[in-house]
Amino acid sequence: MRLSIQADLTYHFEHPSEVLLLLEAARAPDQAIHSERLSLSPAAEIARLDDSVTGERRAVFTGHGEVAISYTAKVELLARDANLKGAATTRVRDLPGEALRYLRASRYCPSDRFEAFVSTEFSHLQGGDKVAAIVEWIGGHLAYEAGVSDATTTAMDTFVDRAGVCRDFTHLAISLCRAAEIPARAVSAYAWKLEPPDLHAVAEVYLGGRWRLIDATGLAPIDGLVRVATGLDAADIAFMTIFGKADLVSQSFTIEQTKG
Amino acid sequence: MRLSIQADLTYHFEHPSEVLLLLEAARAPDQAIHSERLSLSPAAEIARLDDSVTGERRAVFTGHGEVAISYTAKVELLARDANLKGAATTRVRDLPGEALRYLRASRYCPSDRFEAFVSTEFSHLQGGDKVAAIVEWIGGHLAYEAGVSDATTTAMDTFVDRAGVCRDFTHLAISLCRAAEIPARAVSAYAWKLEPPDLHAVAEVYLGGRWRLIDATGLAPIDGLVRVATGLDAADIAFMTIFGKADLVSQSFTIEQTKG
Amino acid sequence: MRLSIQADLTYHFEHPSEVLLLLEAARAPDQAIHSERLSLSPAAEIARLDDSVTGERRAVFTGHGEVAISYTAKVELLARDANLKGAATTRVRDLPGEALRYLRASRYCPSDRFEAFVSTEFSHLQGGDKVAAIVEWIGGHLAYEAGVSDATTTAMDTFVDRAGVCRDFTHLAISLCRAAEIPARAVSAYAWKLEPPDLHAVAEVYLGGRWRLIDATGLAPIDGLVRVATGLDAADIAFMTIFGKADLVSQSFTIEQTKG
Amino acid sequence: MRLSIQADLTYHFEHPSEVLLLLEAARAPDQAIHSERLSLSPAAEIARLDDSVTGERRAVFTGHGEVAISYTAKVELLARDANLKGAATTRVRDLPGEALRYLRASRYCPSDRFEAFVSTEFSHLQGGDKVAAIVEWIGGHLAYEAGVSDATTTAMDTFVDRAGVCRDFTHLAISLCRAAEIPARAVSAYAWKLEPPDLHAVAEVYLGGRWRLIDATGLAPIDGLVRVATGLDAADIAFMTIFGKADLVSQSFTIEQTKG
Repeated sequence: MRLSIQADLTYHFEHPSEVLLLLEAARAPDQAIHSERLSLSPAAEIARLDDSVTGERRAVFTGHGEVAISYTAKVELLARDANLKGAATTRVRDLPGEALRYLRASRYCPSDRFEAFVSTEFSHLQGGDKVAAIVEWIGGHLAYEAGVSDATTTAMDTFVDRAGVCRDFTHLAISLCRAAEIPARAVSAYAWKLEPPDLHAVAEVYLGGRWRLIDATGLAPIDGLVRVATGLDAADIAFMTIFGKADLVSQSFTIEQTKG
Repeated sequence: MRLSIQADLTYHFEHPSEVLLLLEAARAPDQAIHSERLSLSPAAEIARLDDSVTGERRAVFTGHGEVAISYTAKVELLARDANLKGAATTRVRDLPGEALRYLRASRYCPSDRFEAFVSTEFSHLQGGDKVAAIVEWIGGHLAYEAGVSDATTTAMDTFVDRAGVCRDFTHLAISLCRAAEIPARAVSAYAWKLEPPDLHAVAEVYLGGRWRLIDATGLAPIDGLVRVATGLDAADIAFMTIFGKADLVSQSFTIEQTKG
Repeated sequence: MRLSIQADLTYHFEHPSEVLLLLEAARAPDQAIHSERLSLSPAAEIARLDDSVTGERRAVFTGHGEVAISYTAKVELLARDANLKGAATTRVRDLPGEALRYLRASRYCPSDRFEAFVSTEFSHLQGGDKVAAIVEWIGGHLAYEAGVSDATTTAMDTFVDRAGVCRDFTHLAISLCRAAEIPARAVSAYAWKLEPPDLHAVAEVYLGGRWRLIDATGLAPIDGLVRVATGLDAADIAFMTIFGKADLVSQSFTIEQTKG
Repeated sequence: MRLSIQADLTYHFEHPSEVLLLLEAARAPDQAIHSERLSLSPAAEIARLDDSVTGERRAVFTGHGEVAISYTAKVELLARDANLKGAATTRVRDLPGEALRYLRASRYCPSDRFEAFVSTEFSHLQGGDKVAAIVEWIGGHLAYEAGVSDATTTAMDTFVDRAGVCRDFTHLAISLCRAAEIPARAVSAYAWKLEPPDLHAVAEVYLGGRWRLIDATGLAPIDGLVRVATGLDAADIAFMTIFGKADLVSQSFTIEQTKG
């Protein structure tokens, strides 16, 4: 499938501030970037801090006054096998070194707190079947509802509140998987068919020797996700981090399927 | 300075469990490992997941029954400049890519919550002077006291409780530095002169183009720290992670200065 | 001083719901109610659950459809001595029985967590001087700022965030006083000169044999506060508790000084 | 049933400290105190702050040096109907005024957080049947396990951790009932057949016009509970509150059935 992505963000910076953008499609084996363009108006120098391990693309610039950020890309999603059934848990010694940290608790995913729950609820299952059951449990027990959570909401809050948005669903899925000793991380993605169009937060688990995307919200097909940033949780994958202050002026996303 | 390190840990594993050890001296530019030996009794295969970026050494084995873990090393600490005075904050674009994540909130370091405090209390200072003032503030406002904190204690708890142990002092130092937009991470270290001898938790900040160790507890000289693990906070640097269950049988550490 | 109070609240109830109103001026020795009227439109039966100990007035009705609640009163504030200087801490045995519970931690005032802080910061002071120092500390360290706190914010959050609204200032003042073993409670009040006019949340401490009002925000004169509800914290003094659901249609408060 | 109670507590007070004891059998319609004696050794004056509403008995004394506290009582438990089946929820307007506060969130029972969970899980049930289902849910999902919780553990923690002791079971039961708009409070009680003998923490709900005891742990028969203190949660019913510091020297409880 080929997708055309358009992101337009305008911010106003009262004082010059450094800005980190995680907005560009990642360089990953399961997606090919056919064309893309990141531009600032007025034009400004863009420094790059790309990550070779995850393929995450990182742009840094100094914002001042009103700045329009525009990102356009044409991306082809290659064969992506998100099937969980029967995928085996990888032994710790067989994990790639960089996967170890995705076994650990993080700001919004205090997985250490969920060990008893996971053990009681899902211990009869293994690997991909366990992850599938976790995703199903979340879908059955959480309501997708804006306004319940905010920037400080953790998976523990969401587990109690029983409601949240994509970020919260993903944090709980990650926490439960890590509590089951399955590496799990957060991925931001342009999501085809998501309504309204937006950057989506999904999870990714390491099973059977590779990473597999899961969407605990069920709001967008895995086959239509264009990977952007990868990290421990929402703290790592914000599409924009402002070292200083800025006001949002306007923001819009378009994600559309294109021919050939 | 040359240090001789001896760590002896004995655990009992009822069922076979994978164990991740972060117990060996890191390969780092400011320390040279002259000799070392990690051994298990009874002997078992040790897999390695060493990290080339931080130099962290990671050993994985399967524990079953009573297992004695022994680590001996002779390490020379090379010139280490921990001076903070006048060290400048590095601009985001000039950070090494792997330093970015040490600007973010983590499980025990919810730095996002401390922005107002740091801004009010330390905004008149910059770079190394700001870090020095943070360390001094912590020393003046926290009591070193066992029993106040536990495995779930965050820097927010410690900021309120005004007491804790090395791990808590370090979490608060890291949180305040990150809130000031200075990359900060946790380091476990064999600490010369620490009483009783133990693995110590300290912080490390990125200033003036390199990482610098700080010990908010002031309990051990920076010049006598042998680096072991590096991570976001205590979740990353535990010297032993057991994927399953085990009982501690005995544990002892010796860190001594040696001649030539 | 004589004050004229007017409160107008309109809500829409989709389903019949019981409503508890804590909106009327309390019967208290330091204020005299010259005239008052609580009315509902359309008219509905009002049951009363007034509290004889605190003088708190409680009205219960069943809301359905759009309901306009109107409260008008003319209240004379009698001599009120809010002076703290030199007021002595009352020994536990000399407290009125109902004051005991105001020594304890509550939903938004986890006073148990602040004992170390209070002990370090204020232990050189006693009684009213200690309370005055606590109020001054809060005024000097917290910013009055909307949007930082929400309905789940505790005094621990506020102590870290260093910002909040009247409810948060009051929760922190109460927590610190209780941690100093001084009974402290929350009071809602119509506050003369508060801008915009609203029900204000203030604290009240038991010193020298009687309760004394304190306003950690300093936004309204103690002499112009008309007491309404009294309780452990905001959980107890909400002016309206809906057992079911309702939407706010409109709300306005007027508090004005009147002649003789 | 007649029970003989013996409580012996010895504490050491370095400095003179006021002590509040909630250790004596309450004066309540469902229990008759045939004989009792509270004594201190060395003897000291005991002031009384008994509560006429709940029947809670409160003794205050000044402790200094080593003090032995002894309480002996013979109590007859009268007819006690703890049956929940079919008991109706009382409308807010029909509650006794003092029951209102037991609808609200408290330090360890943040009932406001559980509204969605209670609504989803138990909304098909009413009154006593709902409470019975809540008690059954807790019994089926929580493990009775020491060491998981501590003095700061809330019902939210316990809901996540899925384990705790009587205090934690009771906090969760209270929180879920309040979230269902059923007044619920904490009661400490000498519990016949509890092993080891101790003061037990149970809950009490207001249904069908009266309070009914419930024990979410199922560890002791309701018919063998001798009421002591009553309050919002554990913050209110501690059998001993020391305003200062003391060390426990020894402690023992005996609760036995007696003839005639």
